[in-house]
Amino acid sequence: MEPIIIQSSSHSYAIHIGENIRYDLSHYITKKYSSILVVTDEKVADLYLNDLIQVLPQSNIYSIIVPVGEQSKSMEQFHRIQTKAIESHLDRESLIIALGGGVVGDLAGFAAATFMRGINYIQVPTTILAHDSSVGGKVAINHKLGKNLIGSFYPPKMVVYDVNTLQSLKKKEVRSGYAELVKEALIANKSFFHTLLNTNLNHIDNFKLIDHLKKGIKIKAKIVEEDEKEAGIRKYLNLGHTLAHALEAELGYGTITHGEAVALGLLFALFVSENHFNNKLPLEDLKKWFQSNKYPFQLPALNPEVLMAKMKSDKKAVNNNIQMVLLKEIAEPCVIEVDDNALYFQLQAFLEYIQVKIRN
Amino acid sequence: MEPIIIQSSSHSYAIHIGENIRYDLSHYITKKYSSILVVTDEKVADLYLNDLIQVLPQSNIYSIIVPVGEQSKSMEQFHRIQTKAIESHLDRESLIIALGGGVVGDLAGFAAATFMRGINYIQVPTTILAHDSSVGGKVAINHKLGKNLIGSFYPPKMVVYDVNTLQSLKKKEVRSGYAELVKEALIANKSFFHTLLNTNLNHIDNFKLIDHLKKGIKIKAKIVEEDEKEAGIRKYLNLGHTLAHALEAELGYGTITHGEAVALGLLFALFVSENHFNNKLPLEDLKKWFQSNKYPFQLPALNPEVLMAKMKSDKKAVNNNIQMVLLKEIAEPCVIEVDDNALYFQLQAFLEYIQVKIRN
Repeated sequence: MEPIIIQSSSHSYAIHIGENIRYDLSHYITKKYSSILVVTDEKVADLYLNDLIQVLPQSNIYSIIVPVGEQSKSMEQFHRIQTKAIESHLDRESLIIALGGGVVGDLAGFAAATFMRGINYIQVPTTILAHDSSVGGKVAINHKLGKNLIGSFYPPKMVVYDVNTLQSLKKKEVRSGYAELVKEALIANKSFFHTLLNTNLNHIDNFKLIDHLKKGIKIKAKIVEEDEKEAGIRKYLNLGHTLAHALEAELGYGTITHGEAVALGLLFALFVSENHFNNKLPLEDLKKWFQSNKYPFQLPALNPEVLMAKMKSDKKAVNNNIQMVLLKEIAEPCVIEVDDNALYFQLQAFLEYIQVKIRN
Repeated sequence: MEPIIIQSSSHSYAIHIGENIRYDLSHYITKKYSSILVVTDEKVADLYLNDLIQVLPQSNIYSIIVPVGEQSKSMEQFHRIQTKAIESHLDRESLIIALGGGVVGDLAGFAAATFMRGINYIQVPTTILAHDSSVGGKVAINHKLGKNLIGSFYPPKMVVYDVNTLQSLKKKEVRSGYAELVKEALIANKSFFHTLLNTNLNHIDNFKLIDHLKKGIKIKAKIVEEDEKEAGIRKYLNLGHTLAHALEAELGYGTITHGEAVALGLLFALFVSENHFNNKLPLEDLKKWFQSNKYPFQLPALNPEVLMAKMKSDKKAVNNNIQMVLLKEIAEPCVIEVDDNALYFQLQAFLEYIQVKIRN
């Protein structure tokens, strides 16, 4: 199957998507590397690490396993990978492979971006959500005061996306990945949005999966190619993320999945859009779809002031004002600098709309 | 005075060099930044921090002070700066100013490179040695297993080099800076090399200083512009650094200054070159100049095997072999992959030549 080619400012790279293609990895890796370090997490290691090491081109192959979850995007794990790379005598001609979801991709990618000032890395995503981070070259770790605050723009050399590894995902992870696909559809493709609203997340075959991933990746790729450094339209990709990041930070990373937080963030973006533009968006339809697909709406009581403060410390804030992506219409996004007071009241109203208790 | 313009792959930037030009900083900074974080060390803070803050364009100005010395190029200080930046609500339109020597430049530059995936930074160097790191965009911190192993290529937006701040330097620091100037002369400019051998480091006026800094910066800039990512001729700039990094790591960063280690490394490079090419280089003249200018030659006993191991773990090593820059002639550098055994014996002979005891 033809790969999707992504143009980044430093180089272009291929995203291969298909069934069982992880076994063809040595076919895709044409460059001779002096050594390879595979970074993965405990869960993915059990499923795919040995398989992967078997099929890698003969070389000095090392691996390092980090704990499952967002908590691994930490200075501590970052430092562990650097130490492992040095102790394994990786040099500038070495390769890092990120085998796992977005957490592993971001962490291993940032390690690759900064090890000896940058070596190549390849992503082998094992979640649907990771389709998002496989395009755009954003790599990062978290600071205890906020998500993704320490990082680089550093695209991979290649992405090898084997959809068979997605069939073992838990429902929770499928939901998480599809929230980003919904986001991409909302930004740029109305018919794709309606396709998704007609998809039952309990029954997705590989054929549908490949189709949805490709559509999502192409939407993201088009935006990123036009604006790699996030100066303009790339901000559209933050649709739903202003509240999502605040929710994750407030509830504790890992309590709610990223995609589940994005789902709520998307609803909030539609909610604010309707008020701002006095238009009619499929807020209710989307909420029903999320609910019928068991996205979690039972959250602990939340304090809107705390969420506001978190939104302000988000790195998308400019001049200390909250910037939000809103929709004039499906596939017509725009960036609005929102007034603090107005947003505060809308946040209160939104929490009531999704039946979350307010805490002082 | 006309600035030197450096072309990097991402942008071009100006290096302004002159007397008392730190007071013109607000004149040079034409962009409006949302806030500014000045990073400096304890010693430089006492001398210049308040002055600098006075002349900055009106804005939200913050500062953070790190301990003096190479030890500050650590994960810990890196994390402190990130925390300070977040707590001060820096955003993507903020600026970091690195006020200090190479350590502050590398540390603050790496923080700027990775804070929210990269914000602008300006260098205000206060050492002669920092002329070297002000060109080339290399920013990094150290790992306990090796120097500069974690970093990026991330050039500053501007360099404002006030030579008046150099007149307060200790002799040790003057020596350290001039070792890199000697290196640049050896790589590319024979007459500059002879000028330096005729310079008494106890008597350098601002006029000479500006002249030497400009010559050194131009040599480095020419090489870096041709090879930003260190794939080819940029390696020449590592002349003397293979042994220097090993010495610093072995003796403990800070025990010997970087430039003092480079001085010994340069002699070693000439020593190996003479053996390799069977040529005659000004090894003895340079040694005498270093000695008459009080570069320290009294080192504790060293173990050549340990130094060999450190040279192998240097990030310039490729395929686990030591690469060294050698000179066919002054201003005729080349990169040679050196045989371990041969190098081991030459290292022993060299330690005897500079009268350092060998330890098992």
